[in-house]
Amino acid sequence: MNLSDIYEPIEDDLEKVEQSLEAVAHVDVPLLGQLLGYALTGGGKRIRPSLALLCGKFHLYDPALLVPMATAVELLHTATLVHDDIVDHSPIRRGKPTVSSAWGENRALLLGDYLFAKAASVAASTGNLRVIEQFAQALMTISGGEVRQTGIAFDLEEARDYYYEWISAKTACLFSLATESGAILSQSPEEVVEATKHYGHNLGMAFQILDDVLDFVGEEAEVGKPVGSDLGEGAVTLPSILFAESHPEDNLIKSVIEDRDAESVALAVEKIRNSPVIGECLAIAADFSSRACRAVGKLPDNSARQALLDLATYIIQRRK
Amino acid sequence: MNLSDIYEPIEDDLEKVEQSLEAVAHVDVPLLGQLLGYALTGGGKRIRPSLALLCGKFHLYDPALLVPMATAVELLHTATLVHDDIVDHSPIRRGKPTVSSAWGENRALLLGDYLFAKAASVAASTGNLRVIEQFAQALMTISGGEVRQTGIAFDLEEARDYYYEWISAKTACLFSLATESGAILSQSPEEVVEATKHYGHNLGMAFQILDDVLDFVGEEAEVGKPVGSDLGEGAVTLPSILFAESHPEDNLIKSVIEDRDAESVALAVEKIRNSPVIGECLAIAADFSSRACRAVGKLPDNSARQALLDLATYIIQRRK
Repeated sequence: MNLSDIYEPIEDDLEKVEQSLEAVAHVDVPLLGQLLGYALTGGGKRIRPSLALLCGKFHLYDPALLVPMATAVELLHTATLVHDDIVDHSPIRRGKPTVSSAWGENRALLLGDYLFAKAASVAASTGNLRVIEQFAQALMTISGGEVRQTGIAFDLEEARDYYYEWISAKTACLFSLATESGAILSQSPEEVVEATKHYGHNLGMAFQILDDVLDFVGEEAEVGKPVGSDLGEGAVTLPSILFAESHPEDNLIKSVIEDRDAESVALAVEKIRNSPVIGECLAIAADFSSRACRAVGKLPDNSARQALLDLATYIIQRRK
Repeated sequence: MNLSDIYEPIEDDLEKVEQSLEAVAHVDVPLLGQLLGYALTGGGKRIRPSLALLCGKFHLYDPALLVPMATAVELLHTATLVHDDIVDHSPIRRGKPTVSSAWGENRALLLGDYLFAKAASVAASTGNLRVIEQFAQALMTISGGEVRQTGIAFDLEEARDYYYEWISAKTACLFSLATESGAILSQSPEEVVEATKHYGHNLGMAFQILDDVLDFVGEEAEVGKPVGSDLGEGAVTLPSILFAESHPEDNLIKSVIEDRDAESVALAVEKIRNSPVIGECLAIAADFSSRACRAVGKLPDNSARQALLDLATYIIQRRK
């Protein structure tokens, strides 16, 4: 199963989202237009905008509201990626140089700010105050969660809890914004809104765990960035945490994130990728995915519901 | 005349803004709370929130809407300062270390993002879609203007026009957001909204020109940052532009911003501060200020109107 099959029930409107994103880059400041075009096209899976559209399919589907919201969610997502790549000093994303490595950190910072503002403006164009408020709240959760993360030293006792809170803030929060806002903007009953919110949260958790697993076991050519980059940047994700938990006598993870020299990072990545923790991580991701599917059970039965179920499977089986 | 006298008609609600800003720092993420407290307290003149409150005094003054809007404007302003200080590598602001120099650029970047989001959330709490849209638009103008600025090489022919466009985007835009939103949220007639918008724009232009003059002639102890820092960072502001215009044979400015070694910057600052261009800049600022005052002439006569006139005078006479 591939994404374009899953997106079938919303493919026309997803194309409109694509056009809206292209239109964002049409500004009369040449450098800004160039940066926007670079950041917004090429390589994104468009999962978040698709979620907004699909979750709008359970009551009064209104593309005049849902296409802007889907666009806003993707703009917000892109803004966070551009800023993340500054914070992490990432050279490569989706197989091409990051904005910060190609144009410098200052321009990347300002581009991210512009994208936040544009996202807010497009979200505001829905005229729905509940959704606008949730939109602002999501950005607070994402940036607040990242600030918190910079202040946390590795502590095995708390590492797993901290990790779940972190990925909830950085990823699941935006997934649930996408799903919930789709339901709200189609005037769905509250139980449908709740179900889409739970779906989005759990799907986002599964998605991020897979991302973190792929950072260990993926192929660079598929993932679009060097393998093991998380650990090299000092980010302790689920595979490292489970490895440390299962080797309490071994100080490997702690010493790697303290030193971060390339050789010991590569050695740790090799140890982890060949250990049983990868399978355990996939099982945890599958558990979040199945929670997402259970939430879908509360939605009216139609092709969008099937797409949400398929997406929950796709997300834990993907290789990039 | 000092600011607290000018702020007299709105002093109670300005105190409420202050309390709202303090409340923003009460979050359950310790590091985030510390950063917010540091960025939001100490040293701000609170001109922008005061403008929002004062411009709400010409029709149905409603503190339940105006205090949040004034708070949102100051939050947005603070966010842009935090990000500006990263871009400019500024060590000092308002006499104390910048967030980026004290806590590092990554945390400053994320703090700025959080402040943008919080500002948007507080602006959204007014429930006024026109104001929310203008708010997002202002942030697009500010960040888009800065991106544009990073792509412009010094060109004497166009320098003055570019400068005006730049300070319009980076400063006047937020001033007019403050004034216009105050008028809108008090349900003022459109001619009042228009007058406050023109006032805000022209006041902002005057304000920024004064800032740029003070960067040459101010006392470091008063201004709160080293004198001449603009030129040292390669920023060509009105004094440098007028100097270059009046010395077309002299390549001083161009060579200084290309080399930026401390000695030649100091020499250029010294030349400019002792030249007639400082007086010319003050005259231009006074001209913008008087345009602001003419716009005030269209507003109902009350103590807030007098405060706006006094502020227009204060702004071009200030020494910090």
